[in-house]
Amino acid sequence: MEKQDQLLMKKQNKNLVLEIIKNQSPISRMEIAKVTGMSPTSITRIVNELHLQGFVRETELVTSGVGRKAVLLDVCGDVLYTVGVEIDKLIIKIGIVNYVGEIVAWQSIPRDVSESYYETLEKVNMNVKELIAKNRILNKRIIGIGVGIPGSIDYKSGVVKVSDQLKWKNVNIAKDLKQLTAFDIMIDNELKMKIVAENSKGIAKDSQNAVLVGIGSGIGSAIILNGEIYRGDSNNAGEIGHTVIDPTGNVCNCGKIGCLATYISEGALIDDSRKVKEIDSIDDVFDSYRNGESWAINIMDRTSTYIALAISNILCLYNPEVIILSGNTIEKLPEIKEPIKQKCELYIWEPLKERIKIAFSQLGDRGVVLGAAIQAQNLMLDLE
Amino acid sequence: MEKQDQLLMKKQNKNLVLEIIKNQSPISRMEIAKVTGMSPTSITRIVNELHLQGFVRETELVTSGVGRKAVLLDVCGDVLYTVGVEIDKLIIKIGIVNYVGEIVAWQSIPRDVSESYYETLEKVNMNVKELIAKNRILNKRIIGIGVGIPGSIDYKSGVVKVSDQLKWKNVNIAKDLKQLTAFDIMIDNELKMKIVAENSKGIAKDSQNAVLVGIGSGIGSAIILNGEIYRGDSNNAGEIGHTVIDPTGNVCNCGKIGCLATYISEGALIDDSRKVKEIDSIDDVFDSYRNGESWAINIMDRTSTYIALAISNILCLYNPEVIILSGNTIEKLPEIKEPIKQKCELYIWEPLKERIKIAFSQLGDRGVVLGAAIQAQNLMLDLE
Repeated sequence: MEKQDQLLMKKQNKNLVLEIIKNQSPISRMEIAKVTGMSPTSITRIVNELHLQGFVRETELVTSGVGRKAVLLDVCGDVLYTVGVEIDKLIIKIGIVNYVGEIVAWQSIPRDVSESYYETLEKVNMNVKELIAKNRILNKRIIGIGVGIPGSIDYKSGVVKVSDQLKWKNVNIAKDLKQLTAFDIMIDNELKMKIVAENSKGIAKDSQNAVLVGIGSGIGSAIILNGEIYRGDSNNAGEIGHTVIDPTGNVCNCGKIGCLATYISEGALIDDSRKVKEIDSIDDVFDSYRNGESWAINIMDRTSTYIALAISNILCLYNPEVIILSGNTIEKLPEIKEPIKQKCELYIWEPLKERIKIAFSQLGDRGVVLGAAIQAQNLMLDLE
Repeated sequence: MEKQDQLLMKKQNKNLVLEIIKNQSPISRMEIAKVTGMSPTSITRIVNELHLQGFVRETELVTSGVGRKAVLLDVCGDVLYTVGVEIDKLIIKIGIVNYVGEIVAWQSIPRDVSESYYETLEKVNMNVKELIAKNRILNKRIIGIGVGIPGSIDYKSGVVKVSDQLKWKNVNIAKDLKQLTAFDIMIDNELKMKIVAENSKGIAKDSQNAVLVGIGSGIGSAIILNGEIYRGDSNNAGEIGHTVIDPTGNVCNCGKIGCLATYISEGALIDDSRKVKEIDSIDDVFDSYRNGESWAINIMDRTSTYIALAISNILCLYNPEVIILSGNTIEKLPEIKEPIKQKCELYIWEPLKERIKIAFSQLGDRGVVLGAAIQAQNLMLDLE
């Protein structure tokens, strides 16, 4: 066999062994040999290398079946870190995440809507550096920063094509933030980062097919297929907000009629509410709902109906194992979970009902940061 | 490196080289070395093996840049065959397909709706054997039979769970047909086989993300993601017929309201037409449309609107490179293509318009047979 083929295969095997230790620890060398089909000699060699590089450590001794003591292996969480960042309209969140996906440091800072692009980046830079220093983490242990942003993101070039929430258009945040921080930068859409976190640590852990729906000021979804982010041909997959749910219904700003977003986005709820009552914000709508005001109950009833219909349509097309509902509307008005579930009972196509799991995010407001940090590790870790 | 790892890698490399010769022929050994990154020595060894096994042959000599003659390689189409079978309500189609995806023999036989399951299988068996004999193909060259069937198919166990068109329920056709023919049998849903053919030889050739929509007595879709059939968690992905397109609309036999199928399936078109005129079949509806009868124009106008909306929704969620429209309605009434295209112009979400390709199947009524034969090759060929 050729030298280069051998090198490639060695690297693949090493990654495989590390992956297994990471996901199934504590685990013995013998078990790894069994799972991979590789020889105990190969496993011992690879584990030694991983140990020298700081990725793997030996843990406790356990008594195995035949009475001998077996040494178990575990990964070292502190071998490396990434920083996860979420930039939203009114808040910036930063987390330092170790190799086993634990948030070891956390900081959130308010953002002003009038803040310029560079002011925001400078704020991110200062706070990231401060957080690293305060937690006495060596810079060389940090392999990069992952950033989750609402909007249309060109993750390959690191450019925010357009973010309505942040009012940014065609800014190369990967380049600009690298210049400020000197760290490698990865950026992506916030919902995609959220589902990476759910798929790695949350309610969709290790799921092969999962969909996350975000319901708030925007309506969107992110999709995991075969264990990876599904983007579609031009990174537009999951645009549930512009699926037509009533062709004789509301006019959408996209020029079509009856788009889902025109019924359930925060803006739509506020507009409809103002036909009845003077309100300032979405919180007022939710308060009125809680107060039992019938107009608010009607509007939120229609909202949960349309959410259930959207779920039903996603299930028909993607047939995922799990669908996760997240976003401001769900977080601010958790009372809506029950009606959504009841309507799903009515609206989900019978053959899908038995297996499908409808879930709500458990990572709460830390999902985007955690997912961005994990995704940065996935992309930036190059094991030699 | 371990012996077993080496064997596995050898097999993978061999498959890779064969794949490259198949897809890029005529190609020289040197070019294969370049594409794969493997050494010329490895390539020569692998090509020799493939030649001995009958997969690869040398073709013409061409003059390369420096004046030397280069020998080009090609695959041998006749090294093996599979039989593709489509069983539909009123017709059975059979094709023998060679290793390069050419239909080398074709036969279609009428099927009677009153025909029993075993009568149909016996008919398939007899005609397959006759076709093989008539074309003087050696049995040992035929590695198996692929069957495409309308309905819900458990492709793993070879069971037709339910086929409304054939009125079959829980029949293990893979087992039963193997017993009759002595060939290995693979079965799958007809639309999935159709998109395999389009992805291999048709309008979506080599596309990574493609969707095929079938519009006829049933409404469904099949999906290629990352170059492979996407099935979802329980093989129900693509159930476009039961996505809700109008929540205040028609009652569907699935118990929901406003499913797409209730507007555009043949049954729906016939039912609606009978509110106006005594008609016998869908052909009468299409004839009335051609005659310019306003009720038929109205019904087909609504049909093309809903087809365009369905396309729009699929594009928003899957963002494929290409969407292929197929099925009886399109084949029997090709005049509907133009209005569908015009409505797509109106209904497709702006950011997707530029790149998306809306296409019509070019394989016509041979798609299912061809796809089933190709899929059987994909699954049954085990290169040693």
